Amino acid sequence: MSATLHRIDAGRPPSLDPMMALVASDMNAVNAVILDRMQSDVPLIPELAGHLIAGGGKRMRPMLTLACARLLDYPGTRHHKLAAAVEFIHTATLLHDDVVDGSDLRRGKRTANIIWGNPASVLVGDFLFSRSFELMVEDGSLKVLKILSNASAVIAEGEVNQLTAQRQVETSEERYLDIIGAKTAALFAAACRIAAVVAERNEAEELALDAYGRNLGIAFQLVDDAIDFVSDAETMGKGVGDDFRDGKVTLPVILAHARGSAEDKAFWRDAMMGFRASDADLAHAQTLLRATGAIDDTLAAARRYGQRAVDALGGFGQGAAKAALTEAVAFAVARAY
Amino acid sequence: MSATLHRIDAGRPPSLDPMMALVASDMNAVNAVILDRMQSDVPLIPELAGHLIAGGGKRMRPMLTLACARLLDYPGTRHHKLAAAVEFIHTATLLHDDVVDGSDLRRGKRTANIIWGNPASVLVGDFLFSRSFELMVEDGSLKVLKILSNASAVIAEGEVNQLTAQRQVETSEERYLDIIGAKTAALFAAACRIAAVVAERNEAEELALDAYGRNLGIAFQLVDDAIDFVSDAETMGKGVGDDFRDGKVTLPVILAHARGSAEDKAFWRDAMMGFRASDADLAHAQTLLRATGAIDDTLAAARRYGQRAVDALGGFGQGAAKAALTEAVAFAVARAY
Repeated sequence: MSATLHRIDAGRPPSLDPMMALVASDMNAVNAVILDRMQSDVPLIPELAGHLIAGGGKRMRPMLTLACARLLDYPGTRHHKLAAAVEFIHTATLLHDDVVDGSDLRRGKRTANIIWGNPASVLVGDFLFSRSFELMVEDGSLKVLKILSNASAVIAEGEVNQLTAQRQVETSEERYLDIIGAKTAALFAAACRIAAVVAERNEAEELALDAYGRNLGIAFQLVDDAIDFVSDAETMGKGVGDDFRDGKVTLPVILAHARGSAEDKAFWRDAMMGFRASDADLAHAQTLLRATGAIDDTLAAARRYGQRAVDALGGFGQGAAKAALTEAVAFAVARAY
Repeated sequence: MSATLHRIDAGRPPSLDPMMALVASDMNAVNAVILDRMQSDVPLIPELAGHLIAGGGKRMRPMLTLACARLLDYPGTRHHKLAAAVEFIHTATLLHDDVVDGSDLRRGKRTANIIWGNPASVLVGDFLFSRSFELMVEDGSLKVLKILSNASAVIAEGEVNQLTAQRQVETSEERYLDIIGAKTAALFAAACRIAAVVAERNEAEELALDAYGRNLGIAFQLVDDAIDFVSDAETMGKGVGDDFRDGKVTLPVILAHARGSAEDKAFWRDAMMGFRASDADLAHAQTLLRATGAIDDTLAAARRYGQRAVDALGGFGQGAAKAALTEAVAFAVARAY
């Protein structure tokens, strides 16, 4: 029988600590690759990239590559370069996202686009993206290249899809899940899957790790979308209500809109159009979200996807790696409480 | 003895027509790949990409891949997909460039960022870039992947370098050549070189085609930089003086500044800082450029690089392909006249 999320209880809140401890020495090697390969003769590149890369991110995606490799008892070091490639793709995406959203705060720090301007963020993102492919080519696995080039295209597709869904309060739950499946979960899935490729495991194990990462990624994003309405800038490292003011139609909004009165629906439509962006409007939105159970049900959906992620690990042997990967899911879905 | 540029004279101005005729049927195949692979379930992607891709570009870079493959009598079709990948990289770069420069006109049409906004241009650029890597992975040559991922990183590096040189009138001629070698010539070189890879030629031939493309690319950019000061919007498809108003320090500016009086130097410094952006200022800049011979010497430099491109073909046998590639150089350096 596979583990269930509610049974993960070590007498402390679930955390990423076991996973971080599991991969600590590998992560040092990955960090060395990252620092080495973000260098350039053009000083603005390491300066800008370093601001974000050294800026306190959890390194969630490369950590997953490393932990999955540990799950498979992979004895080599190829995954260090590939985990760095995954982090470069993610960093490039963040740089471009912040330009697209006009964000001014990330992880509690001013964003690169605010400090160095949009042009520099766009171009350094392009550099990191290219550099990630150079790292993959050096590794030399066409299978890994296929997985990550596909993930990159899917991410960009998801981002464009999200852009065109922006301010459209009638966005369906299905389309929303398509969007987060692409923009967030695809890279989680790929980060996990490539561990099976370097460990030369069969396709069933590849697909199991893909499913783990994909479901974890969806759970992660669902919780992020809930947190936007319940956190404050201090805990989240970005402003509360950012998505709300940007007119991002996330699951909490979709559920509250669907369940609301005619008056509530009008409020959500106006809010997503950008006509209700005051602090009082945000407070009203939070009231509606609670009254309709939209936040609770978003978090319940996150737990369902989290359980699928845990289930996907069912075929792998018990041990520290599986425990850490399982607790990472519990951490992901528990963050909003 | 290799051909010399001044001896290319068919009783008509040099043109790309022979190269276009040479590769016409191959280009149809490339266009089919481009149209097929810019599709997506997210409608904005083909809409935006199609605006630029169908927007009357010369397809210079994929044409070079095709013509070089013809030079080597390559009998296969692998280069169709790879030429499309090259065009996707170029298109992604153009989309991002127009965001970075805030351009509103390209090839005589409104730019994508003006029609659909900067966010869409950034994200569709990312999609095309990812798609180009998917195409390369499908081809399966790690050597091609290495050449093009390296070219992509070098292009991005060159773009950031150009961004940080912007408005710096003291930029050296050496740094300027570094910038255009990276942002323009690297993809010309890669586009030519990959033809030798698919045709399975030796490294000497790879490097010869690389040198042809690189020198052609530099010549091409030098002439573009000169044209910015002498063309009008009708012939160039973009506004005359765009680089001047953006504070882009190109070779004509570097030469005119270096050769100018103290008063002229002050003018150029102010102009690059953006304080001299009127039509009268542009006219004064044009007067100074002519008086100092800066335009003539920029075009002379283009001819020197063009001659090197022609020389790089010296080892290949005579024939229609070599004639077409040689005339393409003559066309590139003759455009400003």
